[in-house]
Amino acid sequence: MLAIDKLINGIKEKNAPIAVGLDPKFEYIPNFILEKNKALYGETIECITKSFYDFNVEIINNIYDLVPAIKPQIAMYEMYGYEGIKCYQDTIKYAKEKGLIIIGDVKRGDISSTATCYAKGHIGEVDVFGKKEKIFDSDFCTINAYMGGDSIEPFIEEMKNNDTGVFVLLKTSNKGSKDIQDIPCLSANLVFEEMGKLIECFGKRNLGEYGYSSVGAVVGGTHKEECIIIRNKFKNTFFLIPGYGAQGGKAENIKACFDNNGLGGIVVSARGIILAYKNLEYDEKDFGKASRQAVVNMIDDLKNNGIIK
Amino acid sequence: MLAIDKLINGIKEKNAPIAVGLDPKFEYIPNFILEKNKALYGETIECITKSFYDFNVEIINNIYDLVPAIKPQIAMYEMYGYEGIKCYQDTIKYAKEKGLIIIGDVKRGDISSTATCYAKGHIGEVDVFGKKEKIFDSDFCTINAYMGGDSIEPFIEEMKNNDTGVFVLLKTSNKGSKDIQDIPCLSANLVFEEMGKLIECFGKRNLGEYGYSSVGAVVGGTHKEECIIIRNKFKNTFFLIPGYGAQGGKAENIKACFDNNGLGGIVVSARGIILAYKNLEYDEKDFGKASRQAVVNMIDDLKNNGIIK
Repeated sequence: MLAIDKLINGIKEKNAPIAVGLDPKFEYIPNFILEKNKALYGETIECITKSFYDFNVEIINNIYDLVPAIKPQIAMYEMYGYEGIKCYQDTIKYAKEKGLIIIGDVKRGDISSTATCYAKGHIGEVDVFGKKEKIFDSDFCTINAYMGGDSIEPFIEEMKNNDTGVFVLLKTSNKGSKDIQDIPCLSANLVFEEMGKLIECFGKRNLGEYGYSSVGAVVGGTHKEECIIIRNKFKNTFFLIPGYGAQGGKAENIKACFDNNGLGGIVVSARGIILAYKNLEYDEKDFGKASRQAVVNMIDDLKNNGIIK
Repeated sequence: MLAIDKLINGIKEKNAPIAVGLDPKFEYIPNFILEKNKALYGETIECITKSFYDFNVEIINNIYDLVPAIKPQIAMYEMYGYEGIKCYQDTIKYAKEKGLIIIGDVKRGDISSTATCYAKGHIGEVDVFGKKEKIFDSDFCTINAYMGGDSIEPFIEEMKNNDTGVFVLLKTSNKGSKDIQDIPCLSANLVFEEMGKLIECFGKRNLGEYGYSSVGAVVGGTHKEECIIIRNKFKNTFFLIPGYGAQGGKAENIKACFDNNGLGGIVVSARGIILAYKNLEYDEKDFGKASRQAVVNMIDDLKNNGIIK
């Protein structure tokens, strides 16, 4: 089954177009977890990355029945080197066992044989003496196509062979996104609209049963007008929508990213969920319960705004 | 000392504006290395990544006195997961011991606290229970600023604190670079020229003793006319120039990237050097010697074209 159909089926089944961003930071980790791992590993990088893993597992245990997907941000792991990357791999493995779909937020962007390495590692298979192994084993990963169509193409091959997909950066939620993405072109489009055309050109070749492609786009949910334009222009492109909550994205704006059938996007919340024990004033021992409550609150918010029927 | 001055001093000292691309692939590794490691580790990922390390060490031993820098491409390592990343870290550590400057080709691109994680990991320091540790310990890394100025800014802080630098993708050497980078803007610039303005705006705040900044740019050496335009427009920006050799970049074109003092860029060759034992018909046991010969040949070519005086 195409990755995009698997994702949409998951969204329909759980009635929640939500991906939980698993972006751990040292300061997010409850003390009792750190203390346990300090006793085992000392004050080391291993202590930090094992604590990230314990933290993630407890969040996953509390949200896997409510949402279809997680979106781990690799930067938070990668900053700790190979031990962090091992934690990223272990987190994905555990989440897959719980039936979650994985959107690896890696934003890789390169060309030809280099892009093929990223594609094989993240959403494909790697050859180890004739045996095919899945390394990061994500269902989707995010990519950056500033380098052009030949930075997308090597991913298409791996997608086809492994029923996986990508989300290409189109219009992001940060303030500086205007610097390049909003430059007016002679064509009367802005740069991000040209990027959207490039993305849809790859996606159109392979539409799934809901009319969407496994070549999706990252669209920040901060500006309603933009969401309307982008939804209307790129009807076959499914959106990964970060920016909900902490980054200022509101459900009423994000609604414009969805089609008349209530499909077309998946909304990401990270801090709002994994740090809920601080915001909702739970005891740190109950950080998992707090994250579950935050997901319930988010579902309510999306319902109140007509995104979830 | 500013990273860019350290790099230029290295170029002057060795009279070679050359970075060797350490981009190992399974099919590049001589059989005798694979056999040795198979006996130790079996037919595993560890066997492959230990073989990459042995391969890199022998290349480094043969070229470290001829060139100032190496440019490892992380994708080739990352596709093997945490074991590959460990090999990337170990390779950098060894090259630093040999006095080489490290340009980590990671092309990361993200914003705010996520970009800070990449910056700390690759060109800065990470806090481990109050102790500062260098993880990837590169002098420079490459970044992708499609997301705008706030994808560059978090790197500036780490650069200042650690005397490191970045090369931002400006105009790349691949065919598809036209798809986005060559789009004509209303401003009469092409998109890559707007990117160049953004890059130079960050760079101008901190010029080194040769008039260049530690915020450099990646400029493909494939089109002479473009090199001329870019060199004239962005006088304070130092260029990382891939595309020499295997990708079709010729010294006569690349020359336009250099200023009247023979400074302004560093040329990368990867396959042309690390695979030289196949192209120059050396015995595979002598692959290190072949890589040294390829560097000597490249220096001759740059001399014949007036890039090296």
